[in-house]
Amino acid sequence: MSDKKTILVINGPNLNLLGIREKSIYGAETLDSIRQRLENLAEKNSVNLHFFQSNSEGAIIDKIHQARENVDVILINPAAYTHTSIAIRDAILSAGIPVIEIHLSNIFSREEFRHQSFISPVAKGIISGFGVNSYVLGFLAAIDIIKSEG
Amino acid sequence: MSDKKTILVINGPNLNLLGIREKSIYGAETLDSIRQRLENLAEKNSVNLHFFQSNSEGAIIDKIHQARENVDVILINPAAYTHTSIAIRDAILSAGIPVIEIHLSNIFSREEFRHQSFISPVAKGIISGFGVNSYVLGFLAAIDIIKSEG
Amino acid sequence: MSDKKTILVINGPNLNLLGIREKSIYGAETLDSIRQRLENLAEKNSVNLHFFQSNSEGAIIDKIHQARENVDVILINPAAYTHTSIAIRDAILSAGIPVIEIHLSNIFSREEFRHQSFISPVAKGIISGFGVNSYVLGFLAAIDIIKSEG
Amino acid sequence: MSDKKTILVINGPNLNLLGIREKSIYGAETLDSIRQRLENLAEKNSVNLHFFQSNSEGAIIDKIHQARENVDVILINPAAYTHTSIAIRDAILSAGIPVIEIHLSNIFSREEFRHQSFISPVAKGIISGFGVNSYVLGFLAAIDIIKSEG
Amino acid sequence: MSDKKTILVINGPNLNLLGIREKSIYGAETLDSIRQRLENLAEKNSVNLHFFQSNSEGAIIDKIHQARENVDVILINPAAYTHTSIAIRDAILSAGIPVIEIHLSNIFSREEFRHQSFISPVAKGIISGFGVNSYVLGFLAAIDIIKSEG
Amino acid sequence: MSDKKTILVINGPNLNLLGIREKSIYGAETLDSIRQRLENLAEKNSVNLHFFQSNSEGAIIDKIHQARENVDVILINPAAYTHTSIAIRDAILSAGIPVIEIHLSNIFSREEFRHQSFISPVAKGIISGFGVNSYVLGFLAAIDIIKSEG
Amino acid sequence: MSDKKTILVINGPNLNLLGIREKSIYGAETLDSIRQRLENLAEKNSVNLHFFQSNSEGAIIDKIHQARENVDVILINPAAYTHTSIAIRDAILSAGIPVIEIHLSNIFSREEFRHQSFISPVAKGIISGFGVNSYVLGFLAAIDIIKSEG
Amino acid sequence: MSDKKTILVINGPNLNLLGIREKSIYGAETLDSIRQRLENLAEKNSVNLHFFQSNSEGAIIDKIHQARENVDVILINPAAYTHTSIAIRDAILSAGIPVIEIHLSNIFSREEFRHQSFISPVAKGIISGFGVNSYVLGFLAAIDIIKSEG
Amino acid sequence: MSDKKTILVINGPNLNLLGIREKSIYGAETLDSIRQRLENLAEKNSVNLHFFQSNSEGAIIDKIHQARENVDVILINPAAYTHTSIAIRDAILSAGIPVIEIHLSNIFSREEFRHQSFISPVAKGIISGFGVNSYVLGFLAAIDIIKSEG
Amino acid sequence: MSDKKTILVINGPNLNLLGIREKSIYGAETLDSIRQRLENLAEKNSVNLHFFQSNSEGAIIDKIHQARENVDVILINPAAYTHTSIAIRDAILSAGIPVIEIHLSNIFSREEFRHQSFISPVAKGIISGFGVNSYVLGFLAAIDIIKSEG
Amino acid sequence: MSDKKTILVINGPNLNLLGIREKSIYGAETLDSIRQRLENLAEKNSVNLHFFQSNSEGAIIDKIHQARENVDVILINPAAYTHTSIAIRDAILSAGIPVIEIHLSNIFSREEFRHQSFISPVAKGIISGFGVNSYVLGFLAAIDIIKSEG
Amino acid sequence: MSDKKTILVINGPNLNLLGIREKSIYGAETLDSIRQRLENLAEKNSVNLHFFQSNSEGAIIDKIHQARENVDVILINPAAYTHTSIAIRDAILSAGIPVIEIHLSNIFSREEFRHQSFISPVAKGIISGFGVNSYVLGFLAAIDIIKSEG
Repeated sequence: MSDKKTILVINGPNLNLLGIREKSIYGAETLDSIRQRLENLAEKNSVNLHFFQSNSEGAIIDKIHQARENVDVILINPAAYTHTSIAIRDAILSAGIPVIEIHLSNIFSREEFRHQSFISPVAKGIISGFGVNSYVLGFLAAIDIIKSEG
Repeated sequence: MSDKKTILVINGPNLNLLGIREKSIYGAETLDSIRQRLENLAEKNSVNLHFFQSNSEGAIIDKIHQARENVDVILINPAAYTHTSIAIRDAILSAGIPVIEIHLSNIFSREEFRHQSFISPVAKGIISGFGVNSYVLGFLAAIDIIKSEG
Repeated sequence: MSDKKTILVINGPNLNLLGIREKSIYGAETLDSIRQRLENLAEKNSVNLHFFQSNSEGAIIDKIHQARENVDVILINPAAYTHTSIAIRDAILSAGIPVIEIHLSNIFSREEFRHQSFISPVAKGIISGFGVNSYVLGFLAAIDIIKSEG
Repeated sequence: MSDKKTILVINGPNLNLLGIREKSIYGAETLDSIRQRLENLAEKNSVNLHFFQSNSEGAIIDKIHQARENVDVILINPAAYTHTSIAIRDAILSAGIPVIEIHLSNIFSREEFRHQSFISPVAKGIISGFGVNSYVLGFLAAIDIIKSEG
Repeated sequence: MSDKKTILVINGPNLNLLGIREKSIYGAETLDSIRQRLENLAEKNSVNLHFFQSNSEGAIIDKIHQARENVDVILINPAAYTHTSIAIRDAILSAGIPVIEIHLSNIFSREEFRHQSFISPVAKGIISGFGVNSYVLGFLAAIDIIKSEG
Repeated sequence: MSDKKTILVINGPNLNLLGIREKSIYGAETLDSIRQRLENLAEKNSVNLHFFQSNSEGAIIDKIHQARENVDVILINPAAYTHTSIAIRDAILSAGIPVIEIHLSNIFSREEFRHQSFISPVAKGIISGFGVNSYVLGFLAAIDIIKSEG
Repeated sequence: MSDKKTILVINGPNLNLLGIREKSIYGAETLDSIRQRLENLAEKNSVNLHFFQSNSEGAIIDKIHQARENVDVILINPAAYTHTSIAIRDAILSAGIPVIEIHLSNIFSREEFRHQSFISPVAKGIISGFGVNSYVLGFLAAIDIIKSEG
Repeated sequence: MSDKKTILVINGPNLNLLGIREKSIYGAETLDSIRQRLENLAEKNSVNLHFFQSNSEGAIIDKIHQARENVDVILINPAAYTHTSIAIRDAILSAGIPVIEIHLSNIFSREEFRHQSFISPVAKGIISGFGVNSYVLGFLAAIDIIKSEG
Repeated sequence: MSDKKTILVINGPNLNLLGIREKSIYGAETLDSIRQRLENLAEKNSVNLHFFQSNSEGAIIDKIHQARENVDVILINPAAYTHTSIAIRDAILSAGIPVIEIHLSNIFSREEFRHQSFISPVAKGIISGFGVNSYVLGFLAAIDIIKSEG
Repeated sequence: MSDKKTILVINGPNLNLLGIREKSIYGAETLDSIRQRLENLAEKNSVNLHFFQSNSEGAIIDKIHQARENVDVILINPAAYTHTSIAIRDAILSAGIPVIEIHLSNIFSREEFRHQSFISPVAKGIISGFGVNSYVLGFLAAIDIIKSEG
Repeated sequence: MSDKKTILVINGPNLNLLGIREKSIYGAETLDSIRQRLENLAEKNSVNLHFFQSNSEGAIIDKIHQARENVDVILINPAAYTHTSIAIRDAILSAGIPVIEIHLSNIFSREEFRHQSFISPVAKGIISGFGVNSYVLGFLAAIDIIKSEG
Repeated sequence: MSDKKTILVINGPNLNLLGIREKSIYGAETLDSIRQRLENLAEKNSVNLHFFQSNSEGAIIDKIHQARENVDVILINPAAYTHTSIAIRDAILSAGIPVIEIHLSNIFSREEFRHQSFISPVAKGIISGFGVNSYVLGFLAAIDIIKSEG
């Protein structure tokens, strides 16, 4: 019913190729399979799930803006935009919804330029390095936030 | 008539939420209301006004390109793209039209990473920190440029 | 009458030579002519104008201190002191009067060391790059502040 | 039984004061209460829990060394040593056990010097910013690692 | 026939204006004329040519993703995105196709911020500074790669 | 009596050698003699004195924690830990007692790496460079704080 | 009589406004009241007091030069010139009189640019953060230097 | 005949070992074999080829000076001197002949200190990363320059 | 006679103490003695000499402004203002007279912060490190400039 | 006998695990075996050997202090404390005994943050990169120092 | 016999003056005397010694190249080229012989620019600060490498 | 006669082309003509002149070494080696002869990387920016040094 809470999962650039290319690094699980996992979790916890991927910075900002209407927590894997997009940071600030930043890999064991995140300082929390499980843990954190605000 | 001069006002990412979110910071005036103000000013000064907002870097570049045809001065509030977009800077350079950079807030009293602008070095002038009045002052500066080129 | 508001215009080092030397860069208009322009604007808007120039950092600080008594808005072109004077910054902070920072040229298209301003973070707003018109736009911004506080 | 897996939770300097001082920032829950929570989770998942706190860098290194014998996953909140201890980093490397780094607060929204972690590049994953829930999520991640290796 | 190899040429932001604006810097040859030149070369070498331009970072990423299907070498002039787009870098990494980075001008004799390229470290090779001939040399390099893998 | 106020003096690493080694730099007065001086001052001002030295970062943190119970002002000469210990900084923050940082020598006329202090930003005040007299001045400052809060 | 020692207290820019503006930060005590306090201390210790304030860097240098004649210790609160004046540093060096640097506030808990002092490396000692009491402690330190040289 | 144009190929330090050591990195082709390839190309294009290698910075400068007499384009692989020799840069500037900088490997995917080139800003163009083919492409670029000036 | 050329020698802060303090470093020769030397040289070369010293940045700027009327070459020893005064730099630029920068000591063998000069980039030439002879050599250089323009 | 000279070997954090973990990197030789080797060398050269390991910074400082009594040369492998401990550096300075810094691996071919040593500037000499032989060479260097002072 | 191993000792710029100039710093022992010492050691250990000095970077590179034929270990004191020569670094890499870097003085207690070595990351090990004994220790290390390689 | 003093003039890389190439920048005067000028000066002042140019860093070092025998002052224009050669700096230090550094152009108004000189900190004095007259002034400074030591 309409009083169910909603979690929006946003996936940034290149994540559409997950499980298709570079499997040795990121594993064989696809973005579709992650969506399936989270849908199960959503059903079990009686929340709605919105799942979105785009390679376009502008489209991601548009999505965050729309979320102001009907979303309670945003889970975002900003991928490469983590390190370059002040505009997504500003969108998060203006949305006024708690945002959880997740990463598949541990960005701190990668190149120097991936160590800085424009998103982290405005995120509620960060989860990084657990592969697909980063999504699951992030989802549980989102549920926890919803419950504690309940 | 066709010999009226034209001023294009470009608004960058997240400005569509002006007056809707974070009112305590940016005030309650919406982008639509700003457009209205500028239209009045345009009429009084017998110039045309084009008014545009987009969250997409590419769309803003496209707009600047089109402006080469029929625009005399560009007023741009690049918002977050101020600090990250060399592509918009290049578009401004290639357009060959005088560009005035405006900001609602004083970007120098905000976070360190907002102090650097890729746009400022290629702008004709910069106006920053007067809230909605930054638009009005920028518009007057544009009128002045048009007149002095007369 | 005594209930007229007052705008103080402070001009920093080397501005006494405006219109006399380096005309190809700064134009042929002198500081006196700018004063004349602003006096006309002041009369039209029924405000008082004080106009001051000094090459001495200490004298500019003294002037800002005195302004606490009877000035409503300060318009300052700090020239070279923009980049080196923390003392003027502190004077502005202690004066508690809104200050508008103006520059004839666009300081961001000049040498690297002119990109940083100690004044900008404590200014109400900044106007830079419109030549003598920077003074006029700054004056209009000052009028607007006076009116909105009126 | 002896074939139960073991998770060691290491708490760095000043965490003994959790819930006792600075409650407005870190909440009123004490380290003891966190231990209680994790013990419940451990029992439910049939794993052993070791729980340790020290203000001494050397003692934490000793603890990590001993863990090589009988610990399967380490959960560490290195607190201030996050940013200064290469020795703990080396201990983690030499221990050869998966380590999960957790933080109560979002270290990226705090002072600049807290943004760098010597631990992150050698951690399996990082969880930061969810308050006491960071411990719970970290524990779930540890369980997941144990299961996937099981 | 279908066993012909394919070279994709991607042109980044503002390159649609080539030969139309700033001719004194970039010459009078248009992007269309370059396409014509390369088509001749393609025919002579019996390879297919795809030619693409966009001002949108997201659209360029999409294009690189599609290239995984049917492209053998990518020739990219990333223009301003050279210096700001980690997302395009990641797209190149995930595409797994050899990529040749080209620039019309010598980016190392331009502004400081144009000296750093996010693309170069993941490119096969770089050609910079030969004007329109950079495209021709890049195309020959692509042919050479195709032949040596042939 | 029990309503006497208490001042704790903490001495960091290597200060146990004061007056024993490097006398030409630090003088011939030992830590014991300093303790004697301060005890006289304490008696004259009717306050209690606790005096502590350790070479161990952890032990110093423990001491600061215990001080929460019964200490009114802490005087700390953190010696080398001044420049490397975020953990002592955090202990001071969590203790919630005013802390005065003192140094025998003027740390700003020594090596570059001694110019930065992690303690100074969280100290009430800093006294540096007066040799043994730094302790006396710091003690007087502590007395003053006690009186003004009295 | 003439064989009394003399302490000169120099106050840098904006300190004339002490106790008049920004009372919430610097307290309500004026520079005049501080002078009164120090005069009492001077009388009690049988030393002469000279007390000086100027907003001009040059005037402060002149004062330090004159001090060579008849001053035994200088107490200086350089205010904003702390961070920008190499000329005052050189004046101190050339004066050959012990100089004590004092600050009302703890400059290390303020903006980054206030953390560096050109004066500290050439000062005998530094006292920072005790409000008006910084003057008193500095004066006592000066007395101590006079006595130990006596 | 004497009206044939001349291309000088300069090889910097350690390139005499090409194809002899570190074959797994640089391939098995020797500098002699490259010379042979370019001689063929020279003959086909009716230009003269000079080919030179030295481990001495001074000898390379001498060679560039002599080139002023009778060389039309210089192709230089400066190897390690790329990153350290301002003197070779100055020699290029003083020679007044177009210079093409080439590298066997992609210097931007190697160590940080190899990313900066003193030669690039004064080169006509740069070709990097195509192995021995970098020489061939550079030679073609040189031919193109000769023809366009022809 | 009135057609004699004029050389103005400007001495910056603390130079009035030359030969009076710190003789072991700067020698025992006073500024007056230097003036005498230069007057002899002036007479011998039939040029006028103006000689000026001030500790005030503003006064030095005023002097440079006046020089526009009747001075042919300026010899300046900016002392500490060398490293901090953009305003003197701007005054030199606006004066449009050739300026020779001199220093008694070799500023490059002193502290790091004395290695940068705001004056050098706008000076005709620099002479540093020859003690009082720096003035003599600078004067000869000025004579040479006058003659070559003569 | 008592007139034998004494060499103290100090081993920093994590070295107790030598030969037990990470054998592929550091080899299979344990710290005990190294001690045995050095004892043989000590006997052959008629010097005493003290051998010490601790993971605690404070304990290492204590050890260095005690060494002042009866040790002639210190051999220290500070491990991770090399890069973070100013306190150990100060202990070495205050001990006044020649100290030789040794490292098993070549710290300059490891991570950036391992390139800086706080110990090196106060060490007599440094030996790095020869595996267990670094201890032997360091011991021979110590013997040489003892003999040359003998 | 021909199956004797060979150690090459390379001495960089200015080392020919050893023992002749700056004796107070480097001691009175000449390079010839060092050669004599090492020849004795070589004979005792039945290895050949080659000993070489040059002030020319190119000549040192040539020497390293030749060493590929008949040298087993190189001992190099690169002197000033330590900090500037990437070409010598590359020569070492291409030679494929173990190289030991030695320095007479402790380069880490000298000027900042001597702290960085281009050679260290490619050396087998580094010995620094033991005066002439650095050569002896380095030679012993070389012998050890030869023996361990059998 | 043999008791005449000797001045050696050393010219660094590319200076052999003086007056031959880039005349618009460096003027039409050749190095030979400069030598002639200085020979006249030498004769007039009864000193010997040695004049030397080389493009090789090693040859310049050799020359400085030889100068120890029979040269009283060195005048060096190190050209590009100014900014890269620590070896020439060390040669100057080891030579123990006063060295005067000269530059034709003002190196501080050129590229950033030309602002740093390895030679300046060890030079007696620096003369920069007077064109060929820099040589004359440097020669006069050398004469002055000879006389004052005479």
